[in-house]
Amino acid sequence: MEEKTASEVRLPEELPVHERAPRGERPRGIIYVGQKEVMVYVLAVVTQFNAGEKQVQVKARGRAISRAVDVTQIVKHRFFNTLEVTGFKVETETLANEDGTTSRVSSVTMTLAK
Amino acid sequence: MEEKTASEVRLPEELPVHERAPRGERPRGIIYVGQKEVMVYVLAVVTQFNAGEKQVQVKARGRAISRAVDVTQIVKHRFFNTLEVTGFKVETETLANEDGTTSRVSSVTMTLAK
Repeated sequence: MEEKTASEVRLPEELPVHERAPRGERPRGIIYVGQKEVMVYVLAVVTQFNAGEKQVQVKARGRAISRAVDVTQIVKHRFFNTLEVTGFKVETETLANEDGTTSRVSSVTMTLAK
Repeated sequence: MEEKTASEVRLPEELPVHERAPRGERPRGIIYVGQKEVMVYVLAVVTQFNAGEKQVQVKARGRAISRAVDVTQIVKHRFFNTLEVTGFKVETETLANEDGTTSRVSSVTMTLAK
């Protein structure tokens, strides 16, 4: 599913792999939006709802936040017309860079219910 | 947090100039976040609060949404620690392109109170 192009650089808002929970252990009902094609996340959200989840959280950091908002709108307009963003939280996360400095990055959690 | 590069092209989420209200007629308490440096919008929000506004709305479309979220976090951490995002609305806007086609773009309105 994931195709990286040569021009794609690693952005600070992408979680280093070692910070991610293994796929099987990730909490259900939460979709982390990153740098992939928007439809990857749309289908992930739809799959969660179709598997019976009552609400799905969409989380994103930094530049991926715009993509996360697009995800909610595409899910609403193409799949579940009754979808509502029932919750919204903004935070600032402090990430350690490889050179020892830290970066602050905004993160957003949107709760969706249909 | 985001730096404009020379390769940044004009994005459809930027309002054509003729659609914008003249500066003097723009509603108070609303900041439209576009492609400028993030601190431009941070100072605009701070200025509104310092002029006595009880709440300020931050609006953005498309890729500028991430910047708008950054604006809220910088205002909170550097200026008003008590700042809260009290409201959040997501919509899809349909914009007419110059070639007669239309594009859909997500837009976000965040309401801030301190």
